[in-house]
Amino acid sequence: MIVVMDLQAPEREIQAVEDVLQEYGYSCHLIRGEKRLVIGAVGSAGSEIPPALETMPGVEKVMRVLQPYKLVSREMKPDDSVVTAGSLRLGGGTVAVIAGPCAVESQDQLRATAHAVKAQQAAALRGGAFKPRTSPYAFQGLMAEGLAYLHEISAETGLPVVTEVINPADVEMVAATADIVQIGARNMQNYPLLKEVGQLRKPVLLKRGLSATVEEWLMAAEYIMAAGNYQVILCERGIRTFETATRNTLDVSAIALAKQLTHLPVIADPSHAGGHWRLVKPLALASLAAGADGLLVEVHPDPARALCDGKQSLTPEHFVELMAAVKAILPALGKTLCTGSGQ
Amino acid sequence: MIVVMDLQAPEREIQAVEDVLQEYGYSCHLIRGEKRLVIGAVGSAGSEIPPALETMPGVEKVMRVLQPYKLVSREMKPDDSVVTAGSLRLGGGTVAVIAGPCAVESQDQLRATAHAVKAQQAAALRGGAFKPRTSPYAFQGLMAEGLAYLHEISAETGLPVVTEVINPADVEMVAATADIVQIGARNMQNYPLLKEVGQLRKPVLLKRGLSATVEEWLMAAEYIMAAGNYQVILCERGIRTFETATRNTLDVSAIALAKQLTHLPVIADPSHAGGHWRLVKPLALASLAAGADGLLVEVHPDPARALCDGKQSLTPEHFVELMAAVKAILPALGKTLCTGSGQ
Amino acid sequence: MIVVMDLQAPEREIQAVEDVLQEYGYSCHLIRGEKRLVIGAVGSAGSEIPPALETMPGVEKVMRVLQPYKLVSREMKPDDSVVTAGSLRLGGGTVAVIAGPCAVESQDQLRATAHAVKAQQAAALRGGAFKPRTSPYAFQGLMAEGLAYLHEISAETGLPVVTEVINPADVEMVAATADIVQIGARNMQNYPLLKEVGQLRKPVLLKRGLSATVEEWLMAAEYIMAAGNYQVILCERGIRTFETATRNTLDVSAIALAKQLTHLPVIADPSHAGGHWRLVKPLALASLAAGADGLLVEVHPDPARALCDGKQSLTPEHFVELMAAVKAILPALGKTLCTGSGQ
Amino acid sequence: MIVVMDLQAPEREIQAVEDVLQEYGYSCHLIRGEKRLVIGAVGSAGSEIPPALETMPGVEKVMRVLQPYKLVSREMKPDDSVVTAGSLRLGGGTVAVIAGPCAVESQDQLRATAHAVKAQQAAALRGGAFKPRTSPYAFQGLMAEGLAYLHEISAETGLPVVTEVINPADVEMVAATADIVQIGARNMQNYPLLKEVGQLRKPVLLKRGLSATVEEWLMAAEYIMAAGNYQVILCERGIRTFETATRNTLDVSAIALAKQLTHLPVIADPSHAGGHWRLVKPLALASLAAGADGLLVEVHPDPARALCDGKQSLTPEHFVELMAAVKAILPALGKTLCTGSGQ
Repeated sequence: MIVVMDLQAPEREIQAVEDVLQEYGYSCHLIRGEKRLVIGAVGSAGSEIPPALETMPGVEKVMRVLQPYKLVSREMKPDDSVVTAGSLRLGGGTVAVIAGPCAVESQDQLRATAHAVKAQQAAALRGGAFKPRTSPYAFQGLMAEGLAYLHEISAETGLPVVTEVINPADVEMVAATADIVQIGARNMQNYPLLKEVGQLRKPVLLKRGLSATVEEWLMAAEYIMAAGNYQVILCERGIRTFETATRNTLDVSAIALAKQLTHLPVIADPSHAGGHWRLVKPLALASLAAGADGLLVEVHPDPARALCDGKQSLTPEHFVELMAAVKAILPALGKTLCTGSGQ
Repeated sequence: MIVVMDLQAPEREIQAVEDVLQEYGYSCHLIRGEKRLVIGAVGSAGSEIPPALETMPGVEKVMRVLQPYKLVSREMKPDDSVVTAGSLRLGGGTVAVIAGPCAVESQDQLRATAHAVKAQQAAALRGGAFKPRTSPYAFQGLMAEGLAYLHEISAETGLPVVTEVINPADVEMVAATADIVQIGARNMQNYPLLKEVGQLRKPVLLKRGLSATVEEWLMAAEYIMAAGNYQVILCERGIRTFETATRNTLDVSAIALAKQLTHLPVIADPSHAGGHWRLVKPLALASLAAGADGLLVEVHPDPARALCDGKQSLTPEHFVELMAAVKAILPALGKTLCTGSGQ
Repeated sequence: MIVVMDLQAPEREIQAVEDVLQEYGYSCHLIRGEKRLVIGAVGSAGSEIPPALETMPGVEKVMRVLQPYKLVSREMKPDDSVVTAGSLRLGGGTVAVIAGPCAVESQDQLRATAHAVKAQQAAALRGGAFKPRTSPYAFQGLMAEGLAYLHEISAETGLPVVTEVINPADVEMVAATADIVQIGARNMQNYPLLKEVGQLRKPVLLKRGLSATVEEWLMAAEYIMAAGNYQVILCERGIRTFETATRNTLDVSAIALAKQLTHLPVIADPSHAGGHWRLVKPLALASLAAGADGLLVEVHPDPARALCDGKQSLTPEHFVELMAAVKAILPALGKTLCTGSGQ
Repeated sequence: MIVVMDLQAPEREIQAVEDVLQEYGYSCHLIRGEKRLVIGAVGSAGSEIPPALETMPGVEKVMRVLQPYKLVSREMKPDDSVVTAGSLRLGGGTVAVIAGPCAVESQDQLRATAHAVKAQQAAALRGGAFKPRTSPYAFQGLMAEGLAYLHEISAETGLPVVTEVINPADVEMVAATADIVQIGARNMQNYPLLKEVGQLRKPVLLKRGLSATVEEWLMAAEYIMAAGNYQVILCERGIRTFETATRNTLDVSAIALAKQLTHLPVIADPSHAGGHWRLVKPLALASLAAGADGLLVEVHPDPARALCDGKQSLTPEHFVELMAAVKAILPALGKTLCTGSGQ
């Protein structure tokens, strides 16, 4: 840690800062420049950061030298982590495509979609039973009934299930059906929920928050890992910017950067990122080219009658096109497709 | 609702759109321009919005005519709502200042702060017992112990308590102590939590999310009101922008705009907005000048040793200065200060 | 154009709005809903938008039906435009890579870089002679001397030159050397400069502004085309967002969207977008996968001693790797590489 | 400057970094922590920053200790600078209101507005003769004719003139009429223009760019001062964020912060910030409460027929209200109003 102080700071202010640093286990190195005094504070493994150093008289700013995350860091574990769930395998050179409707609406809708995406070698089935919606008057999901359909269609198709949980109290119930439990963008910093899924011993798909920095996203993954669950998949789904022509702004740099900073697999959700089905294919390919280990894609048999996010859903026909393009690009990227349930 | 279609759209595509609109209870008015075909869709009170109109062939865009919120709207209730809690009164021309530490750290720290802010006519005491922190390794709050201190010091000083809840399962416990239950910025779209506090019959202080639009903020309030709890206080606390010189960007326009759009009281949190104690006074005054009905301010007896947000906390001495400035500006704004517990 | 009015608006207010609309050549269609009155205004080809309709009593909002750009629109010209400059060809399925140093620093530096990038089949040489720098104390470019080196090395290598102009007064001088004149991100809305390069009859490479929407970017291109110069290349180079881990946020959705909205070729600058050489390759591939027609890449023989943007410059060795990856991915995207001066 | 290196970096990499630092006049202090090696580099007055230190092997990041601006800094000049132009005085406790139309449209329009704002003690007249417009088809200003009207009406009313220049070639012509030359938000980083107005010896009003950080804004002012013109007024006019309910987001924190970092006067433009006349009064008061030394306000006799920005223009009647509110709040802020031409 570096503490920058006013060169005019009297000796007792410097001493007070050094005292606090020593209280927290740091040793101090003073460097006097022409305009500022810099204290280089060297900590040991256990030393915490003194919370409010910047409020002390004479202190101008405090700069951190180390990253705040540990378990998610590639420094900690240089090799790629691979996440598996049933027949799905993701990371370490294997790309998996997870597809399905935004929301489970009925048994028929889910079954039709599941068979359609399985035929194209999707590796898992997505579908929300609990839907976080901006309006209290919008469809909130089929809940337990939705989970039952997911369970049934998963058994029928052999596709592992990815579904979202939004309430810590529901984690156990959702995890009974889900092969991969999803934390949505709005809940990336819902810490009681993160701690709860940290108790699970099955994979968690953690979406990046709308306005979360890459560092905050990794810290959210650190919450889950710190609770003992090491199977985390990161998912970039677009961030909120000034641009209104697309629903969000897909941040492919975050994919590339996360792949450098962490050993965890990183996937992309091109459906929410662009917000329009015409953008799904280019954004999916861009994500893979940036280094993504997988895709999470919305597919619906009749988007115009979808109860949620129809605008960004692919039809089964569009999904055929997407998968063809994915299969064409992977060899050039040195990756292979997880063909899921073996088709 | 306005549906813009391609002028070249064949008759059957137009018909299909009209069919869906009629299914949802709209009557249609066609206007043919030189380059586009516009359908004006007139609904009745109960008509929902067809979710995925924009995916239909021939449709270019869909534009909403009405606001999506109802109960929070000033159209619904033209007069200012006033929220009261014990001796606190806020809204309708009365300004209240809520002050206290970021986190409850000990009985002594809370007591010292409470007496200091009460002496300056703060109307309520704030203090977090459950702290949502970016790092799993940071102090997470005293929890039940913190609530007990709040209860005790509130009884001692007569100051109503504002404290945050972060888990739907804790709402009942927190509400047993809190006079006003706070929903933090990270939880603005935590819908299970909003529904749960909607069951309460005591005021909820709803912070705006870091990257929530004014409309989304009002929709979050709509969740609480739709569940039957009409006592909502909106709190602007700064949004996330590209600017890094301040912790967040205080959006005073949102305060002014919210006062036009809704009857609910709107307050500001200048501590989190600026992220530095030197900015608290100017941001507090700016918020009031923009129309805010109150302030939420962090005060700590020894900011350099605060376990949380020390950098942005006022000392009791700085709080004296702040209150003097607030008292000086209110008459010019035609507002009066709620002197809380009667001092 | 759609004008939304208060249902309570008295007849004379409605009449006043209709009068203004008719003054501007619109015919009006009134639709009365349950809560609002909507006026559908149909214009003819020449009709301007009445500038301040939204200020009129009774008017709540005004919504535009048509895009504001014309010449750049794909509606106007459905086929891809192809831009050529010497041996460079870009657009319509052909991808070109433009490479070179951020700034021309010396004849030797430029010559070494030019030969290195030519050997890898870069299609053109980039290099700035006039540098817009945040600090007045930073290196501002070699100016006329830099142009002379570009001229000389271009003759020597056969590589066409891309170089930036920042002052309308210098357009003629810069265009004497440049085969493609570049408008930088900071000047995207420098209208005197856009009008001046609109007078040229050689290609203009127009970078997207740091905080420009896709629509504003296309409107800036419209300025150049409206002045008579139809050879415009759009260049996405990252936008400014809250994320600080990368210099900017590469907006691949904007590439995909621009390809849908306009016939002009669109390229990407992965060097400025990521701000770090390690991100250049993934961002370059992501841009191509999203549909980009080319790349603008910074290469420097000794980045650590570069006078400008060394951190994001590739060494010649890294450039070899980049080009190998580009050549590998293009066939899967159905594109071919412009091999420039024939190598 | 602080250079953070990998603890594993071999001696020759450390030596190479030290060599570059010494080349640039720094002395080096090494601090070895448990995970990183930190080099504290102490420079002397003249030492430049080595441009590409971060590209060197073993280097992880480089952190700046000092601010990059000098002449604008309050460290350089602790007292407030006061800018005067004719009867206008701004800064150091005196607040001035500059008002007038967005664009000069006709002699009559300008005269009517000028007399109206003068009657309310505006200290200067604003009005654009050269208008930077998003669309090439929109009204671009009356240019020389507009300047002539400004000259005439200024002589008639005694009000000093504030008007914008957008082309370096026009600076001399504009400065012949303007008492204060304005640089618009889109030109904040138009360096040829900044250098040109730096040659003037009359005040420059420098608007903050839409997506400029406070530091970049101050660096733009540094350009003007480095060229010898010390009379700079900073103007906050709202930044671009994700919020679309207002035209821009007025950043009052930037006003408060700029007042701490620089001695230059800081004013606000509430008209462009909010984009709607109903927001002008609350945003104006908020700006003053945050510490602004003045206001720049758009007033138009007939906003519905304004050729530019009518939606955000006050009528003369609304301006009366605004000035009454300004006069009411200033004493509470310890400021006095510049009554301009003596009325």
